[in-house]
Amino acid sequence: MKWLILLVSIIGCFSIRGLNKASVESIPGYTLMNISVPIDHYAPNSPTFQMRYYIRTDYYQQTKSGPIFFYCGNEGAIEMFVNNSGYIDFLASQVDAIVVFAEHRYFGQSMPFGSASFQTPNNVKYLSPHQALADYAYLLTYLKREYYGLPVIAWGGSYGGMLAAWFRMKFPHLVAGSIASSAPIFHFNGTVDPNEFNQIVTQHFSEVGGPGCPAVIRTAFQYLEAMRYNSSYYYNLEQWFNTCEEIITSDDVYSIMNWLYNAFSYLAMTDYTSPSNFLQVLPAYPVSLACGNITQVVDLTDYAHVFEYVAKGANVYYNSSGTQMCNELNLTISEGNLGDEGWDFLACTTLSMPSGMNGVTDMFWYEPWDQLAYDSSCLQTWGEATQVNYAALWYGNSLNQTYILRHASNILFSSGSLDPWQSGSVLMNSNPNLVAYVMEGGDHHSDLRMPALNDPPEVVSGRVIIKQTIQYWINGTIS
Amino acid sequence: MKWLILLVSIIGCFSIRGLNKASVESIPGYTLMNISVPIDHYAPNSPTFQMRYYIRTDYYQQTKSGPIFFYCGNEGAIEMFVNNSGYIDFLASQVDAIVVFAEHRYFGQSMPFGSASFQTPNNVKYLSPHQALADYAYLLTYLKREYYGLPVIAWGGSYGGMLAAWFRMKFPHLVAGSIASSAPIFHFNGTVDPNEFNQIVTQHFSEVGGPGCPAVIRTAFQYLEAMRYNSSYYYNLEQWFNTCEEIITSDDVYSIMNWLYNAFSYLAMTDYTSPSNFLQVLPAYPVSLACGNITQVVDLTDYAHVFEYVAKGANVYYNSSGTQMCNELNLTISEGNLGDEGWDFLACTTLSMPSGMNGVTDMFWYEPWDQLAYDSSCLQTWGEATQVNYAALWYGNSLNQTYILRHASNILFSSGSLDPWQSGSVLMNSNPNLVAYVMEGGDHHSDLRMPALNDPPEVVSGRVIIKQTIQYWINGTIS
Repeated sequence: MKWLILLVSIIGCFSIRGLNKASVESIPGYTLMNISVPIDHYAPNSPTFQMRYYIRTDYYQQTKSGPIFFYCGNEGAIEMFVNNSGYIDFLASQVDAIVVFAEHRYFGQSMPFGSASFQTPNNVKYLSPHQALADYAYLLTYLKREYYGLPVIAWGGSYGGMLAAWFRMKFPHLVAGSIASSAPIFHFNGTVDPNEFNQIVTQHFSEVGGPGCPAVIRTAFQYLEAMRYNSSYYYNLEQWFNTCEEIITSDDVYSIMNWLYNAFSYLAMTDYTSPSNFLQVLPAYPVSLACGNITQVVDLTDYAHVFEYVAKGANVYYNSSGTQMCNELNLTISEGNLGDEGWDFLACTTLSMPSGMNGVTDMFWYEPWDQLAYDSSCLQTWGEATQVNYAALWYGNSLNQTYILRHASNILFSSGSLDPWQSGSVLMNSNPNLVAYVMEGGDHHSDLRMPALNDPPEVVSGRVIIKQTIQYWINGTIS
Repeated sequence: MKWLILLVSIIGCFSIRGLNKASVESIPGYTLMNISVPIDHYAPNSPTFQMRYYIRTDYYQQTKSGPIFFYCGNEGAIEMFVNNSGYIDFLASQVDAIVVFAEHRYFGQSMPFGSASFQTPNNVKYLSPHQALADYAYLLTYLKREYYGLPVIAWGGSYGGMLAAWFRMKFPHLVAGSIASSAPIFHFNGTVDPNEFNQIVTQHFSEVGGPGCPAVIRTAFQYLEAMRYNSSYYYNLEQWFNTCEEIITSDDVYSIMNWLYNAFSYLAMTDYTSPSNFLQVLPAYPVSLACGNITQVVDLTDYAHVFEYVAKGANVYYNSSGTQMCNELNLTISEGNLGDEGWDFLACTTLSMPSGMNGVTDMFWYEPWDQLAYDSSCLQTWGEATQVNYAALWYGNSLNQTYILRHASNILFSSGSLDPWQSGSVLMNSNPNLVAYVMEGGDHHSDLRMPALNDPPEVVSGRVIIKQTIQYWINGTIS
C-alpha cells in the first residue's frame, strides 16, 4: 500500500486529478470535431471509436499558405492543453497556420469503450504511445486530403512532447518537424538516475527560495519519518497539518508526506512567472511564495512550528484562494477517475519512468526506486507486466544520447532550467539536424504558454528560435 | 471466381507453392535457433510463439570485429532465403560478420498458432509487415545483449527488401543501414501503374528473345481468349496443352492462360545467368531458352502449332527436367498450403499491390486492375477489408519519391534491368544519404545470390558497391 501511493504521487507527476474533468468548453476560434479511428491500428478491421479534436482554420483561410500545427494530446482532456498552449495559437495567427489539438485516446472524452474503457484488460490494452501516434497519423492523413501538401509541424509538451518527438521519428513522411517541449524521452530504465528529478526539485527550491527553504522542508520530512511509526503523534499531526482526514495509521502519516511531496514537486514544475491555471490555480512565482512562508521558520527544533510553515508553503499549491478549510490529503492521489487511471496504466506498461528519492541530494526522504516492487504492484493493479524496455525497443534508449539520436532530424527539444523534467530530457544538440536548449528561468513547457509580460528573457528568445526553426524546416531558410 | 485465380497468380507473384515446404535442413555453418516472440507486439502481455532463425558466428569469432548481417525473412520458409542469398554469407566471411536469417511469422515453421494459424480471423490477424518488423527488432535487441555494440546491416530481397528498407526507416537506432534488393516499396495504390509489371515482363522477353517472342505469346493469348467461351475447343485445348486436368469450363481455359502467365512472369523474374533453384529448378538464361522454343513458330495462323511451342516455352519454367508427363495447370495456384495462404492474406490486407494487364503494352490479355473486385474477393476470402492506404500511412507513399524519401538514410536500393519488380521500386538516388541503381542484366535480387562466373558485369560491380556502402555506413570511410 505504501508503495502504491508513491506510484501515483511520484511517477504520476504528469497526471493529476481533474485532468479529465474539464467540461467540453466552447473555445473561441476552435471547432470541436470527432473522427472515427480504429481502436487497434495494428490489426485489420478493428472496430472504431470517436476521437475528439479541436481545429481552427480561420488564420489559414486568410492566405491559404500556412502549415498545419498539430498538437499531440497527452494525458488529459484536450481542452486543458488548448488552454495552456497559447503560444501555438499565437504563432499560428502570425503564419496563417491551421491549428489542430488532438485528444489522446483514453483521456478526456476519447474513450474507446466508453465508461468501460478501463474495466477489463481487453478494453484497456489499446492504451499505448504507439496506438496514440497511429491515431494522430490517421487523423493527419485524413486532414491532408482536404489540406493537401501543407507541411505539418507537430507540437507537444511533457508526455505530449515525447509523442511529438517520436511522431517525427516514426512518421517523417507526415511530419516536417516537431516542437518537443520539456519532453523526457530518455526518462527510462537504464538511462536516467531515478533520483535526479527530485534533486532538481530541491535545487530549484534552493535557487529560488534560498538554501534555507529546502533545509526546512527536509527537516519536516525527518520529523515525519520519525513520527510515522509512533502513534502517540498521530492525533497531533492531524491538528498540526489541519487534515480533513483522521490520522490513525502510519499510512495516514505517509499520506501527509505525499501531500507535501506532491505540492513541492508540482510547484517546481509549474513555477511560472505569471499567474496560471494548469494543474492548479496558481499565483506567479509560486515557489518564491512558498519558500517565503517556509523560511519564516526560526526554530528548526520546534516541529509543530516547522510543520505549520511547511504546510503554509504547500498551500500555495493547494489553496492559493484560501477557500479550503482543511487539507485534503488525498487530493492528488487517485480516486479512480479516468484521467488518473489512464496515466497509471501507461506508467505500469509502456511508460515505466523510474523515480526515487534519498533525502540527501533531495529534500524528501529515503525511498529509492524499486523496480521489483513497482512491477509487482502494477501486476496486481492491472494484471500487466511492466514493459521496462519499451522505449529502448521502439524509440531507442541509451546512455549515449548522441548515438541514439544520430539519425533523428527536425526535432526541437526545449527545456526550462527550473523544470525537474530536465531529468531524462534532451538538453543539448547532438547532431546538426536537431535543436536543443535549456531556457534559463523557464519551467515545464513554459515556452508553449501564451506570451506574457513577465516571461523570462530566454523563454522569449526560445519562442523566436521555435518560429525560426519552423520556418527553416518548411522553407530551408529563415526570412 | 475468374478474378480470384488472378489474385493469386498475378498479385501473388512473390509467392509460390512450395515456399513453405522446405524441410528443416542442416545448413553448413549455420545453427537453427528459436526465440519466443510476442504474437502481438502492440498490446501488453501477449502470448508468445516460437520464431525460427539461422545464425552463424564462426566468421565473427575469428576477429570479433565484424558487424551483424540480419536478413529480414520474407514470404517463405527461411531455408529458401539462406540458400538463395549466398552473397550475404560470402561477404560475411570477408568482413567477419555474424549472419542471421530470421523467418517471417506465418511462414515456414514460425506459426503463431501452429496448424490453426490461418483458421480464424483472430488467429491470422497478427500477420502484417509491422508485426514482422517488431519480431526482427525484438530478436535483434535480444542478440545485441550478447553482441553488444555491433553495427547491424539489414538485408532483404523482394518483400524482404521492403522489410529491410522499412526496418531502417522505423528502427534507425537498431539498424545502421539496409540493403534492399529488388524492393518495390512504392508498388501501391496511387503510386504505381498497375500495368507496368507486365509491360516490363514483355520488354524483357523482347530484349532477350527478340520481338518475335512476345508476339507469338500475345497471339497465343488472343486465340485462348477467343476459344475461352467456345466449348467446342475445350477437348482440343486439353490435347494441345497436354493438361493433366480435363478442360470442361471457361474457368479451365482461364487456368491454361494463368498457367502460361505464371511461367512467363516468373521466368522474367528469375532469368539468371547461372542455373538456379529458387522458385523452380531452372537452367541458366531460361528466358532465352523459352524464346528459343517459342520463336520456332513459323505459322502464326496455325493455333495448334502456336500453342505447342508456347507450351514448350512455359515448360522451361515448369519442367526443365523433362520428368513431368502432363502439365499441371494448378501448380502455381493456391492449393491452400500455408505459404500461399500467408502471402494471400498479406496481399488482401496490408500489401495490396495493384497489377493488371491490357494485351497491348504487354503480351497477355485485357484484364485491368479492378480494386473493387479485388476488395470484394478479399472480403469474401478473409473477411477483411483491403487496407489500400496501409503503405501510405505507415511508410509514406507518393508519386514524388524524392519527397517521401527526403528523410530516409542509409538504405541501398538495388534493382536488375531485367526484373519486372523495377515497377514500384526505387531506381534512382533521391538524396545523398541513399544509394539506388539498376544493374544492367540483373534480375530479381541477382546481387544477393552467390557470386558465379557468368554474373553480368554490373551485378559484379553492384556487389562491390554494397560492400563499400556498408563499410561507409559503419566506418564513415571506404578502406
